[in-house]
Amino acid sequence: MVKISIQGARGSFHDIVARSYFPDETEIIESPTYQQVFEDIKKGTAQYGVVAIENSSYGSFLDNYDLLLKYDSSIAAEVYLHIVHNLIAFPGADIKSITEVYSHPTAMAESHHFLDQHPQIKRIETDDTAGAVRMIKEQNLHHAAAIAPKLTAELYRMHVLSRDIGTNKKNYTRFLIIARDGAPLTDKPNKSSLVIRAKNIPGSLFLCLKCFADEGINLTKIESRPVIGDVWQYYFYLDLEAGIDAPEVQRALKNLGKVVSMERMLGSYEKGKMLES
Amino acid sequence: MVKISIQGARGSFHDIVARSYFPDETEIIESPTYQQVFEDIKKGTAQYGVVAIENSSYGSFLDNYDLLLKYDSSIAAEVYLHIVHNLIAFPGADIKSITEVYSHPTAMAESHHFLDQHPQIKRIETDDTAGAVRMIKEQNLHHAAAIAPKLTAELYRMHVLSRDIGTNKKNYTRFLIIARDGAPLTDKPNKSSLVIRAKNIPGSLFLCLKCFADEGINLTKIESRPVIGDVWQYYFYLDLEAGIDAPEVQRALKNLGKVVSMERMLGSYEKGKMLES
Repeated sequence: MVKISIQGARGSFHDIVARSYFPDETEIIESPTYQQVFEDIKKGTAQYGVVAIENSSYGSFLDNYDLLLKYDSSIAAEVYLHIVHNLIAFPGADIKSITEVYSHPTAMAESHHFLDQHPQIKRIETDDTAGAVRMIKEQNLHHAAAIAPKLTAELYRMHVLSRDIGTNKKNYTRFLIIARDGAPLTDKPNKSSLVIRAKNIPGSLFLCLKCFADEGINLTKIESRPVIGDVWQYYFYLDLEAGIDAPEVQRALKNLGKVVSMERMLGSYEKGKMLES
Repeated sequence: MVKISIQGARGSFHDIVARSYFPDETEIIESPTYQQVFEDIKKGTAQYGVVAIENSSYGSFLDNYDLLLKYDSSIAAEVYLHIVHNLIAFPGADIKSITEVYSHPTAMAESHHFLDQHPQIKRIETDDTAGAVRMIKEQNLHHAAAIAPKLTAELYRMHVLSRDIGTNKKNYTRFLIIARDGAPLTDKPNKSSLVIRAKNIPGSLFLCLKCFADEGINLTKIESRPVIGDVWQYYFYLDLEAGIDAPEVQRALKNLGKVVSMERMLGSYEKGKMLES
């Protein structure tokens, strides 16, 4: 039985990602925070964890970048999920009878055009999309609905009252599957993620990127985070379109060693597939 | 009379920055949000605005990067401020008689070691540090204190009960002074900020940075933000250690034009001085 820690409740977007990777014989652990997901892996309570790392509209989940550095877990896989919001209520509910909607503030904001068309519905923020569906079910709130993934309707025996109510249909989130032992879920990694600290000399970030450019390795993402206690110094998180065992990556890393004061490989994995939610 | 729009109330860190740059004959406009500061400049309600752009521990104020691109205003100057938190209360107050503390969640979090030593004080979050001092004064709350800059004590005739209560003494924020017409506050600019969108080809960000490295221009900051509606594409915000009129910058920009699909100069200004708060 594989134990997978996710942020949020069963039926959430994190759960959809977990099920896509571990379809059989899994136990989902619901963690209230992202930090708890990393803790679950550190303590061995879970073998794997699922954390959102970037949304196509909102940008990076910066706290999770910090957690990748703080904890020793590795990136085992990535998954791209098409985020589709739905209005979930009790079977037989009519939109005209709904007077309250519960959801995470982000899901609420992303569905504002739909909600604006139903001004009688009062918006109440919660910590979690799927948790809102479960709360409505458990408290028997027949006048209420939640904005959540359609998986929640199936899991909690509720009904999709309106499908795909999000304003921006091009809404995607990249998730990472993290693991304690860093064992990749594939033997054909073609992406790698690492964090570096460039030496404190002019042009040092350029020299770091040059190591990869000289080897023809494409970077798909660069993210910077402050070094706490060392004012205006940065960690740079780089995603490479190559597996760590590729000879060009090995050559690049050898040269990189000359221009960084710190580097850590966060994982090498297969380029993620796009899933529907 | 120069009108300056700041986020927050008089006495806030933004106000300290405003006063440092425009010491005489200024009118401070208190804006509830950063977006309102940009709106004030757009509408001409204010000639200048002050916005935080990065903190040495928390990283970038990403919403403000987005606003720099959304609005036509330019960066006229930068200021670095040493962030010092103080416990402000009525004159004559004793720490033992204080049962409530009001402040912005960030100031509260940054003072947690101090607050932990005074468990009798209930923590109540507000939108603004200086606004909390004003509220305590106006409502005559003699049992309460606020965490705020010391300037608030002077402005609202209150008392610094404890000086420098922040946990991390190396706490700095970089502020930008933005202006409608983009007129620099100096005739000797030695820094420039621009936003680019690299062409959608492999290694294009590296090629952009190469334009500056080839001319010996140092980059002090690189920040990425998603392009809305164009999934996994990014705007890159670059800070250069050179004024826009420098010949090497002009050469770099000419080469940059070949590898970007969009570029916009956000401002050229003098490297900011460090202020105490």
